[in-house]
Amino acid sequence: MAMDTSAKKAVTQIATMEEDFPQWYTDIVKKAELVDYSPVKGCMVIRPNGYAIWEGIMGFLDTKFKETGHENVYMPLLIPESLLEVEKQHVEGFAPEVAWVTMGGSEQLTEKLCIRPTSEVHFCDHWSKTVESYNDLPRLYNQWCSVLRWEKTTRPFLRTMEFLWQEGHTIHATAEEAVEETLRMLDIYRQCYEDYMAIPVIPGRKTEKEKFAGARETYTVESMMKDGKALQAATSHYFGDGFAKAFNVRFTDKDGKLKNPHQTSWGLTTRSIGALIMVHGDNSGLVLPPRVAPTQVIIVPIAFHKEGVLEKAAELESSLKKAGIRVKTDKSEKSAGWKFAEHEMKGVPIRIEMGPRDIENNKCIAAIRYTGEKRELSLDNVEEEIKNLLAEIQEGMFEAARERMNTRIYTAENLEVLKTIAAEKPGFIKAAWCGDQECEERLKDEAGVSSRCILEEETPAEDAVCVCCGKKAQHTILWGKAY
Amino acid sequence: MAMDTSAKKAVTQIATMEEDFPQWYTDIVKKAELVDYSPVKGCMVIRPNGYAIWEGIMGFLDTKFKETGHENVYMPLLIPESLLEVEKQHVEGFAPEVAWVTMGGSEQLTEKLCIRPTSEVHFCDHWSKTVESYNDLPRLYNQWCSVLRWEKTTRPFLRTMEFLWQEGHTIHATAEEAVEETLRMLDIYRQCYEDYMAIPVIPGRKTEKEKFAGARETYTVESMMKDGKALQAATSHYFGDGFAKAFNVRFTDKDGKLKNPHQTSWGLTTRSIGALIMVHGDNSGLVLPPRVAPTQVIIVPIAFHKEGVLEKAAELESSLKKAGIRVKTDKSEKSAGWKFAEHEMKGVPIRIEMGPRDIENNKCIAAIRYTGEKRELSLDNVEEEIKNLLAEIQEGMFEAARERMNTRIYTAENLEVLKTIAAEKPGFIKAAWCGDQECEERLKDEAGVSSRCILEEETPAEDAVCVCCGKKAQHTILWGKAY
Repeated sequence: MAMDTSAKKAVTQIATMEEDFPQWYTDIVKKAELVDYSPVKGCMVIRPNGYAIWEGIMGFLDTKFKETGHENVYMPLLIPESLLEVEKQHVEGFAPEVAWVTMGGSEQLTEKLCIRPTSEVHFCDHWSKTVESYNDLPRLYNQWCSVLRWEKTTRPFLRTMEFLWQEGHTIHATAEEAVEETLRMLDIYRQCYEDYMAIPVIPGRKTEKEKFAGARETYTVESMMKDGKALQAATSHYFGDGFAKAFNVRFTDKDGKLKNPHQTSWGLTTRSIGALIMVHGDNSGLVLPPRVAPTQVIIVPIAFHKEGVLEKAAELESSLKKAGIRVKTDKSEKSAGWKFAEHEMKGVPIRIEMGPRDIENNKCIAAIRYTGEKRELSLDNVEEEIKNLLAEIQEGMFEAARERMNTRIYTAENLEVLKTIAAEKPGFIKAAWCGDQECEERLKDEAGVSSRCILEEETPAEDAVCVCCGKKAQHTILWGKAY
Repeated sequence: MAMDTSAKKAVTQIATMEEDFPQWYTDIVKKAELVDYSPVKGCMVIRPNGYAIWEGIMGFLDTKFKETGHENVYMPLLIPESLLEVEKQHVEGFAPEVAWVTMGGSEQLTEKLCIRPTSEVHFCDHWSKTVESYNDLPRLYNQWCSVLRWEKTTRPFLRTMEFLWQEGHTIHATAEEAVEETLRMLDIYRQCYEDYMAIPVIPGRKTEKEKFAGARETYTVESMMKDGKALQAATSHYFGDGFAKAFNVRFTDKDGKLKNPHQTSWGLTTRSIGALIMVHGDNSGLVLPPRVAPTQVIIVPIAFHKEGVLEKAAELESSLKKAGIRVKTDKSEKSAGWKFAEHEMKGVPIRIEMGPRDIENNKCIAAIRYTGEKRELSLDNVEEEIKNLLAEIQEGMFEAARERMNTRIYTAENLEVLKTIAAEKPGFIKAAWCGDQECEERLKDEAGVSSRCILEEETPAEDAVCVCCGKKAQHTILWGKAY
């Protein structure tokens, strides 16, 4: 089947990522019909193709959360100003970027209410009223909702005023348990990215400068986009008992003493869809890993007005469906080339082409989205073949993404080398650091890189020195330019 | 096993519904741990027990929506004032009861933004930009989210400032298709109440006075609480092309002409949890139908420190789980009586009691929450027995609720009779009506009843007259006192 190139061009008229990466990203977001702009500056309309991806991510995470004993709840959208102000660092971090409700109906409110930028304060307030003894612990809660942060510069999925997320909030009798929980949830995020979205991530701990407002420690999984820039993919925070003290959350422990519990929170947002685009996408559009793809297989019957073609396609669709594969058939009147381009743009992992001659020979063609390769498959055992192919694609996409990331992680021994790499080579840089915020800021100013995370398992050598100031090194840091 | 009555009293210290129905309701909401009050007036914290019920309802509906071709999307939380004002009736209905954002960060906004009370305007705006031809129709969208309406008097689930819901929004090429959709979704709501929640409902059409702001027709399913009052359980609206015209949503039809599509919207909210409480609850607390219940079976091992009891309970739990039953075992150190009362309060449909002597005799006791009946079951075929029992309870609860409702629907031929029934007998009243809003208002003033819906299948007889003014009757109306 020859490709109808003019049709392909009309559908896929997008910038190439080599010439204009940001424009390429925006084009995919629009042309794959993931998002539409809305009349509210900085807020997006998430269209069915985009939302279906989010439903998949929610499904994966919600199952994992429940398997690890978490329960879902719902806290109010609005937060009274006085409640936001209870924890000092927290309000300093968030107050400048919230939307304020000052009127209800036609009435002026006596106290402003902000739209939640995150919900720690509601969870703490609730626990202060409902937790009494060690029997009530741990409380392992999660909430699916939207939050709002008053951002000036926004981009669909990556940075929007309003976004969808889950926010997990837990309290525990001991610090050990809380730290364990923080890391357990970080690992579930790693699984969600690596096993489900085929996106390799690097886990680590945030520096003092980069951590969450009010947290004692923030852990992160960092991912690398095709342009070499970093995306903070999800974070998990350990709070110690700071919030509990501020909100007077207390429990009577086994020893009869009144104590403050230790707290965590963790979140993953619709930003993850931006990562999917920038890690797997290409110049024909979105490329979805099979586990994520709302449609895993699109059947495009060729010359389908000829006798028997549509019947055979329907038969194939039904047998793939029975095998648990998410499959659709495109029976629209568009040209085959047009259809190919459309489904490529939307990132469908496998396209099956099947025309009269294929049917005669009891076979079909499977076109693999992420490599462009075409394979001839016998119709005899096609369910099994497609299942194996989907698994192969999932694995292959992950390996390819890991390879792309690993080959672009550099090491810098001194400032000059670091600056040269930062200027010339897109990617991450590993370099030792003394722990001083001044050096961190200097690297930002002079090399344009920020610390993505502390690589906790890569302790610097005894004699290693800070890449910036030359003092004794405390940590190995992953540096990069970030979204 | 003798009941530990003092323990039971401590857990179930709630008002009886006979002495104080509103207090009884509030007590269940708190003691069954469905909801907690929040620091935001009129907004609730939905706790795990409450949210799990909502997750079940979402699961039922979402499956039905997808089976009927609907796709989920997400529209912004905020609506600019100018967008809300596009459709005149709509803004008149909603503007007095919205919360207004007037500040972002520390900046005063040039245009106020309201928190969505419903999202018709966003959907219309989106369609005006993305629909071009009949090929783009129908658009069958749904959104799961929270909405906010600035209410003065609130009660958990029944009337809260913020509530969770789904809002379906669709557009169609013809009025016929849109009306068909309106009624199809109304029937899915009926199924959700009757088949899933075991709550009988009466479908009908709202009068002019009671319909949704901007709708041409509003359809409703009405349910009857144990106190005889009505609860509007869900609504489905047909808009005609009024919104489409106001928002300039247009498509080129098959005949080449530019037309406005016909629109619907439909919603079901967390209010449904209030209905569950007030239709099935009793003086020991919540009573959940098996299909809704997050925990369908609670195993309470008796004298479980004796050898073999916990092992046998674990065996039973595991085999019930394998059979697809949602089951838990209460191994806490509380007294059996205390546990009984707690799980009764939470509405678990079946409690299984199993002690050393039961195990010796290869049996257990199943206590049925909604009747209080106890049955001896052999452990040999217990999965099958419990499955059948759950189905029997589901059916029995529905039949009991239907019986309760049907015996309290009265008929009134004239105003005096109607007033007497309204004053003396809790329930619904069927009566003929001329169609005049004046009569509707008079019945509200004089008898305290509002029109719940027009019973479209019960056309008044040729010579029937309005119960209020004596003029020729147009419709049979279901009247009632409503939440």
